[in-house]
Amino acid sequence: MAGRAAAKVPIARVGQALSRVGTPALVLDLDAFDQNARSLVHQMQVFEKRGPNGKTVALRPHAKAHKCSALALRQMDLLGSAAVGLGCQTLAEAEILASAGLKDLTITNEVVPIDKVQRLAKLAKTEGLALGVCVDSAVNVRQISKELQAVGATIKVLVECNVGQNRCGVETAEEAVELAKVVKAFDGVLDFDGYQAYHGAIQHVRGEAERSAECRKVAEKVVAINAAFDTAGIKCNTVTGGGTGTFLFDAGSGLYTEVQPGSYFFGDVDYGKNDWGRSKGWTQSLLVAATVISRNPSRRTVVVDAGLKAVDLGSGPPLVLGEEQWSFANGGDEHGVVTVPEGDLPEVGERMYLIPSHVDPTFNMHRQLVCVRGEVVEDVLEIDASGPGF
Amino acid sequence: MAGRAAAKVPIARVGQALSRVGTPALVLDLDAFDQNARSLVHQMQVFEKRGPNGKTVALRPHAKAHKCSALALRQMDLLGSAAVGLGCQTLAEAEILASAGLKDLTITNEVVPIDKVQRLAKLAKTEGLALGVCVDSAVNVRQISKELQAVGATIKVLVECNVGQNRCGVETAEEAVELAKVVKAFDGVLDFDGYQAYHGAIQHVRGEAERSAECRKVAEKVVAINAAFDTAGIKCNTVTGGGTGTFLFDAGSGLYTEVQPGSYFFGDVDYGKNDWGRSKGWTQSLLVAATVISRNPSRRTVVVDAGLKAVDLGSGPPLVLGEEQWSFANGGDEHGVVTVPEGDLPEVGERMYLIPSHVDPTFNMHRQLVCVRGEVVEDVLEIDASGPGF
Repeated sequence: MAGRAAAKVPIARVGQALSRVGTPALVLDLDAFDQNARSLVHQMQVFEKRGPNGKTVALRPHAKAHKCSALALRQMDLLGSAAVGLGCQTLAEAEILASAGLKDLTITNEVVPIDKVQRLAKLAKTEGLALGVCVDSAVNVRQISKELQAVGATIKVLVECNVGQNRCGVETAEEAVELAKVVKAFDGVLDFDGYQAYHGAIQHVRGEAERSAECRKVAEKVVAINAAFDTAGIKCNTVTGGGTGTFLFDAGSGLYTEVQPGSYFFGDVDYGKNDWGRSKGWTQSLLVAATVISRNPSRRTVVVDAGLKAVDLGSGPPLVLGEEQWSFANGGDEHGVVTVPEGDLPEVGERMYLIPSHVDPTFNMHRQLVCVRGEVVEDVLEIDASGPGF
Repeated sequence: MAGRAAAKVPIARVGQALSRVGTPALVLDLDAFDQNARSLVHQMQVFEKRGPNGKTVALRPHAKAHKCSALALRQMDLLGSAAVGLGCQTLAEAEILASAGLKDLTITNEVVPIDKVQRLAKLAKTEGLALGVCVDSAVNVRQISKELQAVGATIKVLVECNVGQNRCGVETAEEAVELAKVVKAFDGVLDFDGYQAYHGAIQHVRGEAERSAECRKVAEKVVAINAAFDTAGIKCNTVTGGGTGTFLFDAGSGLYTEVQPGSYFFGDVDYGKNDWGRSKGWTQSLLVAATVISRNPSRRTVVVDAGLKAVDLGSGPPLVLGEEQWSFANGGDEHGVVTVPEGDLPEVGERMYLIPSHVDPTFNMHRQLVCVRGEVVEDVLEIDASGPGF
């Protein structure tokens, strides 16, 4: 198919100047990315032997943020023993990361329906792969057990608990225990591992004190869940949660065995608006390169070639790197309209770099990631799990 | 690269039941799509010999809506002589469509910077391809001329005129004429073809009368532009504009030689909210298939596996096909929370079909299009130009 070949034209060449890369392009500043990884390891050192039973709280960076197996490998390499593995949100992400050689993956979501459960069973057979999955219904547990048994594989199972997000998860500590018992009834096929207590919606509570308070409410629920498991005599190896906005509080609670920051490695406008107190460890590493294709001096606007198909606008407009007074307005699918209140209006052909407002859906729209060191392209990575997954 | 193979797993098989296709999946009902094409041809018959100089107003469906070369070929086949070619919004779209065999493409946008102009020149060399491009600055015209001359190719050039959208385009009729003169100075390399007078922002003015009134304001500007070209003695072969919400008014004005509906073939919630009077020719052909992965009877909600990475939420939430009382709420990247106010709550594993609120960015997130006839998969198409382009 001829079109297929054209679609796979590399967006950039290794050694090329960033200023010559085709736009719109998703750009990763490797120095900043590497620094974020080091900073994360440093921040987690505080939680050495501070988890449940005196264990060290581990990192499980969430790959849903970038959907790129090459970046996942790079993350594991940079984090070393501080990370136990990666989180995935879709089965397709897990399949792609496993085939790229990642060895410890937890699908932090329910895998439904039966056709997917069959694929999950096949994935669980992968040699050397430690695979986990979340459940919140007995019907799903039975399906997973049946399909795993059919292929002769085992899988780690975590009960997902609703700790405030009101999305997936069982509602009460009692239900969590009941579901764990269903899982444990299939011992030898299903390896009951613990539970997920993740509240994504509070990660953008702006004030540090307010965000901490929201995390304490979650922690109270975790304490109650632990008590119910203790009463039932069921041991939880893993309590997982904590995204970029909350992982320091969750890790500090002493209740979590692992946390799942994802955006931390990249940064975005939305997380930039949080008050981090003294705890902001990340710097902006992810940018969208855009080119001025039209200018209008009377309106003091320029039009760039990055619209809502290149930079997600669901969490507000992007910012323009280094130009605090400039503002980006939605110009449709392929256009952004940037107002430049004073000074020289950029010329047609000039570049600017946008700070995305939301990491995850921006990665999801792109196919290639241009990794730069300074002003030079060091690598071009395929965002091989980008797209909705299925 | 192992991950690459996994990413290319087909989402569905020809002959498979729609109910077994992996979700989230972008689904096209071919009967509805074909019917929309026939309806469009029928609606355009009214404009036979009704364009400028008594010519028939032609269709140039916009491929930005679907970014799929196989669908573009299908559109040209279904529309027959009613269509002159297709519109593209990015150079990458044009490259991919041309390599798939499309023969008449207009890039309805500016192509900048010089690296892209060089690719444009290379594309213009494609044997048998009639290629057009929009310009709104003399600097861009000179670049295009220089690069085309370098490779010995010619290209049709349209001046883009701002008729109210305040995005790209020259501001006044006089500027349009001046820029046309710059184009004509490179006669033999640049083939001055006319101008684009497209106003995307008014396509969703809800009331039919109000939308018609907005189109009349645009028409007044077109009349003024025509007068300026007449005075200068410059002939315009092409006046192009008109998207799904406005093409009937633009075609009816007698001022346009061609119109560019795109979403018409698919339909979405946003266009569904327009008052179409007696002129709504399309039915919903595009859906996102989703599966219930979690349910909560006490809240009367279910969670489906289609979130903002599978169905664009920028124009509001999708609707659930056949369930007018159900409402979809943003559940994050990979989740949608559907409230079912009364009746049986769907079980885990059940399907539902979402009507997207906005065609274009929804196509842009997907990689594969599942084409069904009734309940059976007839084709699985690669959305080969999906992504931001570069």
